[in-house]
Amino acid sequence: MDKEVELPETPNPGHLARCAQLAMVLEVAASPKPGNVDRDHDYPDTTFEHFLASAIGTYPVLEKAAMPQGVGVYSGVGALIHAAAKESSRWQRGGNTHFGAFTLIIPLLIAMGSNRAVSEIVEKTTSEDAVEFYRAFSIADVRIDSVPEFDLDESNSIERIQEAGTRLFDLMKLSAGHDLIANEWVTGFTRTFRCADLIREKAATMTINDAIVCTFLQMLAETPDTFIQTKFGREKSVEVSERAFEVISGSRDLDSIKHRVHEFDERLIREKVNPGSTADIIIGGLFVALVRGLEV
Amino acid sequence: MDKEVELPETPNPGHLARCAQLAMVLEVAASPKPGNVDRDHDYPDTTFEHFLASAIGTYPVLEKAAMPQGVGVYSGVGALIHAAAKESSRWQRGGNTHFGAFTLIIPLLIAMGSNRAVSEIVEKTTSEDAVEFYRAFSIADVRIDSVPEFDLDESNSIERIQEAGTRLFDLMKLSAGHDLIANEWVTGFTRTFRCADLIREKAATMTINDAIVCTFLQMLAETPDTFIQTKFGREKSVEVSERAFEVISGSRDLDSIKHRVHEFDERLIREKVNPGSTADIIIGGLFVALVRGLEV
Repeated sequence: MDKEVELPETPNPGHLARCAQLAMVLEVAASPKPGNVDRDHDYPDTTFEHFLASAIGTYPVLEKAAMPQGVGVYSGVGALIHAAAKESSRWQRGGNTHFGAFTLIIPLLIAMGSNRAVSEIVEKTTSEDAVEFYRAFSIADVRIDSVPEFDLDESNSIERIQEAGTRLFDLMKLSAGHDLIANEWVTGFTRTFRCADLIREKAATMTINDAIVCTFLQMLAETPDTFIQTKFGREKSVEVSERAFEVISGSRDLDSIKHRVHEFDERLIREKVNPGSTADIIIGGLFVALVRGLEV
Repeated sequence: MDKEVELPETPNPGHLARCAQLAMVLEVAASPKPGNVDRDHDYPDTTFEHFLASAIGTYPVLEKAAMPQGVGVYSGVGALIHAAAKESSRWQRGGNTHFGAFTLIIPLLIAMGSNRAVSEIVEKTTSEDAVEFYRAFSIADVRIDSVPEFDLDESNSIERIQEAGTRLFDLMKLSAGHDLIANEWVTGFTRTFRCADLIREKAATMTINDAIVCTFLQMLAETPDTFIQTKFGREKSVEVSERAFEVISGSRDLDSIKHRVHEFDERLIREKVNPGSTADIIIGGLFVALVRGLEV
């Protein structure tokens, strides 16, 4: 039995899409979220408001993803991620806000909307999905370095995907070792579901903001962030996780470590080090938690 | 020619509903917004996150309101406000977050979705709308004192509305002198449209956050807030507007008066004085501005 079937009521596409919107909005609002955009921190070109507008603007794509599909029907994961990136960029001028998040929550929306396992959805992707995913890069202005086998700067990478019949799932397998999101695809979204459990558990004894921030720190402490790794190398990402571990160790709530968290936040912002992949996992986890009944 | 027809493209219900969601989210995020909940200030029982969840959760009602209707068709304003209050309370546990905002934006959504004048929509309301509007009070847990002729504590007020055939528009006429939202209904939403113009004008030279805060202060300076008046009396609401006028006088941007704005904010929070009606007008204005092309 797949984890996703644990639902409080029959999900409908509109309900699932609103849970996805709210997951993106609550994640970006949660503060202080070291190194990342939050209610009190903008990047120079990408602000809190850009994230809010992106989360709200993509509603129709999120709803479409959650429409029930028959088993075996082509789910269109790649096309939906492409459409979400496009719609996001129509609603805000801050560039890439949610590309990683869309790559996580769109398969989850498809799975939940059709009452299927998310692992089945991602395993059944085609080379058409891979092509659409690549096309989405340019819209989202994503700087990634995750699939050296298909260098994004090469104009013929799409042709090569088509000729070789490479599925999106195959590309994710190639990236799984150095990309947290790709790793979710090939491991049945294990970290996302664990993140959902952590948020619900913490939200029983603290505010939703603090539950998100504490879960973020815990996930970051457990696994080096691959967005940092891509930009600054493995060593840096490991160092950031070690620091996150120090920050949370011995704490039971956010208040008791607020000073340390703020210091950590300021340091990462100064160094322009943002744990973006961990933030994406938080969005996925929040989405699952909301669908399963997390109350605001 | 009515003001609402100035649209950048043919509006569709989903687009209009997302503009309404985003207006509610951007308004509550804008900070420092003296006396009100914002990204950095919660009330004891109603938090920033409650407002975010309410804005996102009400999507289907907002979309329904924006569905095209034929001229002369019963628009269901009262039932839609009732449904919005209900849906809002399903998504968050903070009580009344957006009742005033729904009362403003639902007629606007109906008007824009059907390419009709908002004054026509509100003038054509029926006593059925009035009954639905009264029923929504209890869900939203709204404390108001705006229609003494139909005392809300009297169990027979709904019967009296039905017997007298009192239209929702008639109730708004009775409240127009002491309720900013009711006043919008009977004056063709003049302040809302003016607010939209102010936000767009300011957003040309400042961030969207600062444009919202400066417009909020300007609107508050111009007109005493009737939510404050209901709670603390006329004198207090006039005093708050005078103080808002002092805070903004001589300024051209938010940075130069930030110290004064923070001081004003702290004072209102300490006194538990929140200009809630002005915040509702800002939501209406933001909604109109977004539909007309305000970019995030």
